[in-house]
Amino acid sequence: VQLLQKKRAELHTLGIDWRITGIASRRLGWCVNTGGFDPENLCGADPCGAGALAREKSINDVHQWLRSVQANVLFEATSLNVASGQPAIDNLRAALEFGAHAITANKGPVVHGYQELRDLAQSKGKRFLFESAVMDGAPIFSLFRELPAIHLKSFRGILNSTTNLILTEMERGMTFDESVEKAQSLGLAETDPSNDTEGWDATVKVAALVTVLMGVPTKPQQIQREGITRLKVEDVRAARQHGQPYKLVCRAQRTSSGVEASVGPQQLPLSDPLSAVAGTSSAVYFETDVLPGLAIIESNPGVETTAYGMLADFIHAVG
Amino acid sequence: VQLLQKKRAELHTLGIDWRITGIASRRLGWCVNTGGFDPENLCGADPCGAGALAREKSINDVHQWLRSVQANVLFEATSLNVASGQPAIDNLRAALEFGAHAITANKGPVVHGYQELRDLAQSKGKRFLFESAVMDGAPIFSLFRELPAIHLKSFRGILNSTTNLILTEMERGMTFDESVEKAQSLGLAETDPSNDTEGWDATVKVAALVTVLMGVPTKPQQIQREGITRLKVEDVRAARQHGQPYKLVCRAQRTSSGVEASVGPQQLPLSDPLSAVAGTSSAVYFETDVLPGLAIIESNPGVETTAYGMLADFIHAVG
Repeated sequence: VQLLQKKRAELHTLGIDWRITGIASRRLGWCVNTGGFDPENLCGADPCGAGALAREKSINDVHQWLRSVQANVLFEATSLNVASGQPAIDNLRAALEFGAHAITANKGPVVHGYQELRDLAQSKGKRFLFESAVMDGAPIFSLFRELPAIHLKSFRGILNSTTNLILTEMERGMTFDESVEKAQSLGLAETDPSNDTEGWDATVKVAALVTVLMGVPTKPQQIQREGITRLKVEDVRAARQHGQPYKLVCRAQRTSSGVEASVGPQQLPLSDPLSAVAGTSSAVYFETDVLPGLAIIESNPGVETTAYGMLADFIHAVG
Repeated sequence: VQLLQKKRAELHTLGIDWRITGIASRRLGWCVNTGGFDPENLCGADPCGAGALAREKSINDVHQWLRSVQANVLFEATSLNVASGQPAIDNLRAALEFGAHAITANKGPVVHGYQELRDLAQSKGKRFLFESAVMDGAPIFSLFRELPAIHLKSFRGILNSTTNLILTEMERGMTFDESVEKAQSLGLAETDPSNDTEGWDATVKVAALVTVLMGVPTKPQQIQREGITRLKVEDVRAARQHGQPYKLVCRAQRTSSGVEASVGPQQLPLSDPLSAVAGTSSAVYFETDVLPGLAIIESNPGVETTAYGMLADFIHAVG
């Protein structure tokens, strides 16, 4: 909402005006205002407060909201469900079936619902976009939309900021628990950090990249996965001191029968550019048939970085 | 031509069929065949040989070729003219005025003719595209086309492969002259390597990025420029040994009055990711208002990498 506000004038010059007609979260439930909420209030402590905002009480789910306000776009940002991609898939499907564009920052629906949602979007003449699902707002999926007639052979990367920060902080002297707390205080790790530390977040990202960019539908459960919880702090420090630091490395490689992919801690030599990806940065190196080495690196991401990915999707969809 | 051939079936599935109706070079002059040359012959030793190919003798310039064959696309790949961007600008203008798309791998017309050629293309409903002008086929310009409502604040990069290879080889024991010869043998440096070693190639690339991505028309002569010829081989080696290697660093920074840009050799700490860009690789780190750090790195580029940039432009233009 803050980024939409900040870019309001610029969006207007692109022919895009907007109002926010509904918001929903586990805590708030559905708050709907057909005339459009005041965005300043939405960023405050009591976004749906009865005093500040008109609230249309009768709306209780995404279908009712879509119909009631005749919505054009849904921004979906529920948290990751590794096993099924729900409820994100249902929300996105509802938007597309109604005829609204569906934009998500959630990688769950990309790995569990890509083909269905892509085909549904196409049949409705709408867009299903998810740039922020991998590497925040860094343009991974849109980059490959700009690379026609190219074949992705393999990629290697560091795709989970939380574990990368934890490893960096452990190298610098923190314990595992202290570095997890630091990641939580920065808003990177959730209260239960196990999706990150057990490698699930990275694994779902790999599955999303393989599914979309390599065209091979892949579930997280099909990817060889190991997290960083077995690493001892003294081993992490010794590895760095010996110039072979640990990184949680994501890999995928096209094979004759499909794609082989894995996520796991590896010691990398300092000559490997991935060894220099520190803290909250992330990076992915692509090998393609016509561009032998192309890498995207994102450093210093923040909340606005993820928001920008969704904003870019929005502009691509409606612009 | 080889890449067009290799991708013929795939282009056909994109609805794109093609034939090559004319080629021209300083050595060959104009060779035109309205029915289309045999691409296999074009890659041989005698592309316009009278025996193998019908040659239409009356065509002597780009205007005659455009009219004679009713061309749809011009691929322009003359060598760099730092001072004026000619004759590339005239060739590209001729194509656009006729109503053909204009694609170039030459950065000269981007810095000396961008506004004119862009506006001309727009007025004709055609495209002026130049992805291969900077970092070969790595998608720099197309990346920013996919990043709407973004403001580029600054960038830093290593954009000239020849000098980067020369510095790497000097660190490894070659003399300056030996490393220049190696760059020439790899097809990187021209017979007269001074455009590279004096920093002109990198400077024109910086001017192209500033002009197109920052929207500030900039000529190479306005950019502070120093090449690598003043560096002594023993200094280059000592700098590397002390962990502060020399790199030919390109920079641009938006200021209150415009953009400040420079190209020159600098010693970088090993903690700087640019210090790890070795040999023929290149890299650019962008700082934008919404993505604080976004980098593109290209490694192991070759002739096909540059060709791919032009192919991607072609598909964007006609697809």
